[in-house]
Amino acid sequence: MSVESTVVKIAEAARCASIKIARCSTKNKNEALQKIAEKIEENAELLKKENEKDLIFAEEKGLTSAMIERLKITDATIKSMCDGLRDVIKLEDPVGAVTSTCKRPNNLEVSKVRIPLGVIGIIYESRPNVTADAAGLCLKSGNAVILRGGSEAINSNLAIAGLISDALVETGLPKEAVQVIPISDRDAVTFMLKQEELIDLIIPRGGEGLIRFVVQNSDIPVLKHYKGVCHVYVDEFADIEKAKDICFNSKVQRPGVCNAMETMIVHKKIAKDFFDVMVPAFMDAGVELRGCDATCKLIKEAKPATEEDFHAEFLDLILAVKIVEDMESAYTHIEKYGSLHTESIVTKDYERARRFAKDVDASAVIVNASTRFNDGGELGLGAEMGISTSKLHAYGPMGLTELTTTKFVVFGDGQVRG
Amino acid sequence: MSVESTVVKIAEAARCASIKIARCSTKNKNEALQKIAEKIEENAELLKKENEKDLIFAEEKGLTSAMIERLKITDATIKSMCDGLRDVIKLEDPVGAVTSTCKRPNNLEVSKVRIPLGVIGIIYESRPNVTADAAGLCLKSGNAVILRGGSEAINSNLAIAGLISDALVETGLPKEAVQVIPISDRDAVTFMLKQEELIDLIIPRGGEGLIRFVVQNSDIPVLKHYKGVCHVYVDEFADIEKAKDICFNSKVQRPGVCNAMETMIVHKKIAKDFFDVMVPAFMDAGVELRGCDATCKLIKEAKPATEEDFHAEFLDLILAVKIVEDMESAYTHIEKYGSLHTESIVTKDYERARRFAKDVDASAVIVNASTRFNDGGELGLGAEMGISTSKLHAYGPMGLTELTTTKFVVFGDGQVRG
Repeated sequence: MSVESTVVKIAEAARCASIKIARCSTKNKNEALQKIAEKIEENAELLKKENEKDLIFAEEKGLTSAMIERLKITDATIKSMCDGLRDVIKLEDPVGAVTSTCKRPNNLEVSKVRIPLGVIGIIYESRPNVTADAAGLCLKSGNAVILRGGSEAINSNLAIAGLISDALVETGLPKEAVQVIPISDRDAVTFMLKQEELIDLIIPRGGEGLIRFVVQNSDIPVLKHYKGVCHVYVDEFADIEKAKDICFNSKVQRPGVCNAMETMIVHKKIAKDFFDVMVPAFMDAGVELRGCDATCKLIKEAKPATEEDFHAEFLDLILAVKIVEDMESAYTHIEKYGSLHTESIVTKDYERARRFAKDVDASAVIVNASTRFNDGGELGLGAEMGISTSKLHAYGPMGLTELTTTKFVVFGDGQVRG
Repeated sequence: MSVESTVVKIAEAARCASIKIARCSTKNKNEALQKIAEKIEENAELLKKENEKDLIFAEEKGLTSAMIERLKITDATIKSMCDGLRDVIKLEDPVGAVTSTCKRPNNLEVSKVRIPLGVIGIIYESRPNVTADAAGLCLKSGNAVILRGGSEAINSNLAIAGLISDALVETGLPKEAVQVIPISDRDAVTFMLKQEELIDLIIPRGGEGLIRFVVQNSDIPVLKHYKGVCHVYVDEFADIEKAKDICFNSKVQRPGVCNAMETMIVHKKIAKDFFDVMVPAFMDAGVELRGCDATCKLIKEAKPATEEDFHAEFLDLILAVKIVEDMESAYTHIEKYGSLHTESIVTKDYERARRFAKDVDASAVIVNASTRFNDGGELGLGAEMGISTSKLHAYGPMGLTELTTTKFVVFGDGQVRG
């Protein structure tokens, strides 16, 4: 069978399965999730054995140790997958919720009712745990899912998917509700992105290159974020101690993630006093500072920042620093260099706090707290499928609700239009 | 200047304007809408003169009389544009609405707040009134808009856009909040569809060919519907008189629109009795019937339907008719031939009504009423920008709310992540 017909066949099976799973009870979906977790626990050794094949191949291919690390299935990975699935069981099922309702003058009763999207395609790289995490969220929200992991994790992904299929069958759900595309060829992705009639949403998870490829080749709607160039703006009227804690946490607590701070913007009137407190903390933590001219005059440890540094998502203990004349200039900087991800202000001034919250455009705008709070769990959504910086459908963390849509349901008594 | 740089320049200006208009008060936006309506009324003669240029060119090009009819700006068109703008003034401004709010265990206050999308690109054909209608909806929802009408309406569209710009300037809004791409070349559309950093949403309005071109070439999210193949399912337990009125209204009241019925599905147990009442009404209205084999045995006036007829959006007084064995077969038919637009059931049976409403996937599922009610005005959304059959972001009529998104706003007191 050709690559194209394999992909089409998988997508058609997913479409059929999606109709069945959309009508499933919450209880049945939770039973399936529970069974998947049990299967993964019971088959830990099998998973590690299959994973070993991928690891050997990865070594042969000369993948970096960081990539091999992400690829590896350990007891901790297995526990985390199972804990994740059990967390999803506890989340409220969004399907069937009535989000609004009204009675029209002609007595039609109009409601909006939450329904699954249908078929979701996930395209991701290396981490095999995404296979279980994504499947859990899609199933709970009543969707079928097609998973396309990286070729380097193919044995691990197929093994996990096999256990999921078994669990689905044992709990009476269609096994095609979760499928892995078993083809390493990149053409498989291209064909997948053209199945507009069969797949409702594509979520790419990975590097910017992968995501751009998906956006440029997809006829299907895509939810994605390219990168997180997040700022903390330390205002003229900031509480210096709070500003220090917030900036430190935003940069240092977990530098490799998308909601970490990449550039710190500081009002010129507070810069010197703030740096006196802030810089030693950053130095102790090994943070490299790259500053604008004004910054370099105040911080002897800072290297001069290039234009690229202000665009950069370092994902590392590196921080760009920019001193601004006023709040308007902070806005201008964020508009030019920001990625619509997360923007924080630290200020004691009521009006400035309100204005920043209102006027700054980002998926999360935060006043007096760390950028690290832009996260599904922290914002109260439960487990998340990633953070979208696309404004359509989901802007910010995508939880279960973001994997659904609403339809209009209209109850009448014979009404016709005049 | 090249086509590409003209398009980029327009998109950059729109992005700048979008930041300003997003922060505008409702009062200011309403003043601008009022002024646009006045300008259009005051300059009716100018608009008709510019429109005349397009009409002459259209005659020379040999456009069909139906196309020329849609292109023509009459006193009625002008009144309808101005009425439309004044209707939009009356609608509630969605921007700034808090759609949910919660307090987290760490005392962070998390809200979702409605904001404009930013820059919306509309790609449409012939009807110049779309220029004013779309501009009104985009402005009220705080968005900048780039309009790309058909080359056949270029003079009319530029004249309307000129009046809009004047009105914006006179009411203190950025004139680049509404711009028309002045280039007839189709390349202009292709370049527009690549401005992912500058344009947030594309809405194509027109024939299926235009929409497919947009979907296949856009890096920007697209909201669209290809066609409306809407069904009424007359159940075994239908009230025959109501079924007759609903089917008649769904097919005949305005056959040329997307929410008209294209195929009538009838349960075999009611078919004969129902047809006795229904068929004479359709015959009197000049409706051509194309039936499945079972239908043709019962209705002598029916021609045999082809497979294509069940896929067709006739947009005319033609109706496909299908007799089914049971309700499941009605579902199967809708899943296979439907377009996720509008599906109605006529039944007196409580359980079947509920099941249809729950299980059928369409942007509007209607019980005991005409398919013609799937419309922004009828469902209580006010003026609409079209009906989406994409499940992402907007599924069904798109009103002002669907031209916005939500961001997370988080108020803290120095919280950091542990």
